[in-house]
Amino acid sequence: MSTHVAASTGSRALLSPRVVRSTVVPVIRHQVSALEPTLARICGYHLGFIDEHGDPSSGGDGKLTRAGLMMAVADGVGLRPEDVQSQAAAVELLHNATLLHDDIADTDELRRGRAAAWKVFGVSLAIHAGNALQALGLQMVVDDSGPGHQKIARSFAEALSLVHAGQARELALRPGPGSGTAAYEQMVKEKASALLEFSLATPALRAEKPENVLTALRGAGRHLGIALQISNDVEDIWGDPAMTGKPLRGDLKRRNLTFPVLVALSADGPAGNRLNRLWHADSTTETHLQSLADLIDEAGGRHSAQQLSRQHLDSAVEHLGRAGLSPAATTELTTLFDRIVNRAA
Amino acid sequence: MSTHVAASTGSRALLSPRVVRSTVVPVIRHQVSALEPTLARICGYHLGFIDEHGDPSSGGDGKLTRAGLMMAVADGVGLRPEDVQSQAAAVELLHNATLLHDDIADTDELRRGRAAAWKVFGVSLAIHAGNALQALGLQMVVDDSGPGHQKIARSFAEALSLVHAGQARELALRPGPGSGTAAYEQMVKEKASALLEFSLATPALRAEKPENVLTALRGAGRHLGIALQISNDVEDIWGDPAMTGKPLRGDLKRRNLTFPVLVALSADGPAGNRLNRLWHADSTTETHLQSLADLIDEAGGRHSAQQLSRQHLDSAVEHLGRAGLSPAATTELTTLFDRIVNRAA
Repeated sequence: MSTHVAASTGSRALLSPRVVRSTVVPVIRHQVSALEPTLARICGYHLGFIDEHGDPSSGGDGKLTRAGLMMAVADGVGLRPEDVQSQAAAVELLHNATLLHDDIADTDELRRGRAAAWKVFGVSLAIHAGNALQALGLQMVVDDSGPGHQKIARSFAEALSLVHAGQARELALRPGPGSGTAAYEQMVKEKASALLEFSLATPALRAEKPENVLTALRGAGRHLGIALQISNDVEDIWGDPAMTGKPLRGDLKRRNLTFPVLVALSADGPAGNRLNRLWHADSTTETHLQSLADLIDEAGGRHSAQQLSRQHLDSAVEHLGRAGLSPAATTELTTLFDRIVNRAA
Repeated sequence: MSTHVAASTGSRALLSPRVVRSTVVPVIRHQVSALEPTLARICGYHLGFIDEHGDPSSGGDGKLTRAGLMMAVADGVGLRPEDVQSQAAAVELLHNATLLHDDIADTDELRRGRAAAWKVFGVSLAIHAGNALQALGLQMVVDDSGPGHQKIARSFAEALSLVHAGQARELALRPGPGSGTAAYEQMVKEKASALLEFSLATPALRAEKPENVLTALRGAGRHLGIALQISNDVEDIWGDPAMTGKPLRGDLKRRNLTFPVLVALSADGPAGNRLNRLWHADSTTETHLQSLADLIDEAGGRHSAQQLSRQHLDSAVEHLGRAGLSPAATTELTTLFDRIVNRAA
């Protein structure tokens, strides 16, 4: 993935993904390889270190988005990458734990262009593997004794609780007059924003920055998460599977109430009305999904989603500006925010 | 369940379950009720606070074994129950999280005499509910600032990792010449002993006791876990479902390599040989399971298991004796150990 970034964004931003990768990946590899052998294999597969036969693999690893954000903020508060190395590895492990369990819960068969772990190793072992990654992340956070360690551990535990709450809330989402998008925002705040808030706030806790800096960074994380999730929602319907690593319209097939759908279902007018009729039909044929996609677009779901995602991205950048980081870090984070939201996966 | 204890053990031991229940249950109820509503319902159901319709229920709650042990040790090192209240609640939450996920992984349909949570609410939500309980336990441990809090948090995280490793190792158990029971002991040490070690050691960490006390208590927990697991294994085959709350011979049906089975499969002689032939037959009829049970018994699996369970119980009591707790607490814990192993569930 660093080659992809190099091709698309030029030299200044190149530094960061390389540093992030070389700081975080060895730690994760080391920790994962020390797991019970079966778990090490499943987690190594999920993280893209090995293929399904246990052979070394270079494909399928994640973008280290959360570690990247954490290290950029670390730079912006005068810390070195090593100062938040454990926390950066931990947040990536936790993020991957949620993906492992999410794929089971959603019966998603593809992850980063490869078979999801539960398809390869079965549901039982994949549940335990997700738990193992979560426990590993936790161990790394509580084993750390650097400045602010207890506050960091607390915010890690809180993020973990929020993520699980958001995942459950997502499954409970129901279309309704007006209430749909409010419940959606609450869900996203928990599911997508919690780990981003943790990533942005941790270096400030380590550097023992005052409360206003933390508030600004957490606000940035909150808005970034909402922008990212809405952008993911748009990509599910109109994105490029080669970029997302997931089959097109998986959410649509499962009739998940993503943001464009919620907007379109509550829209007045012929497209919204027709969508409400077609939405509850069982069909998952490409033609039917295409009709749904067209109606969501016509009813304004795509436009509203893109607009709201942009607004939240702007708000994220605005909050970031209030954190008083170094100008170079602020510029880098602004670029990162944009890249995260606009090639979401 | 306290009525059961009252009926079987007389007045002295009555105190403890009541104190444990009144100290721990309100904390757990309060924390669980504050979860996202869907999660609160699933976790409340799993913990026996409500029935599947959401109505108050008094059946199906656990025995609070781990909290009970923790509070007895607390008493033995001069602490009050409140001094380890959060940790006692946390270890019960964590234990219940593993049960929730285990029932999914094992497709176990019954838990404490009621439908398992995944049967009532579905696999997806039950996965998230297990995660939520785990995260809640973690939050309670890291939010605590009392003496020894960082060591306690670390040992909590370590126990969590060990439990997940043990669960995975259990699924990977294979019969083999000699190797079977060694892998079994390793698995049990992780899966069953880790939380018991945490339960026994936590009050000593809180009271800042020297290393030899910790070693003694952890040793007691290790042996207690092995004794308990082997006793559970025997109950699966020859126990009373009314006591265990689980269907008879579930492990046998799934051909799980429990301790009596491992012993019998590697036994020389006609019963062992016959068992090896029948073991791999697909049949799960009662007649077939009865034949397996009889052969395991004949090949010495039941006797060896009961003997080894007793030996580990004796070792647990011996280690306990080296911890230097108050005589009253030592007596109470000895009774508790015996009761835990000999009416395991």
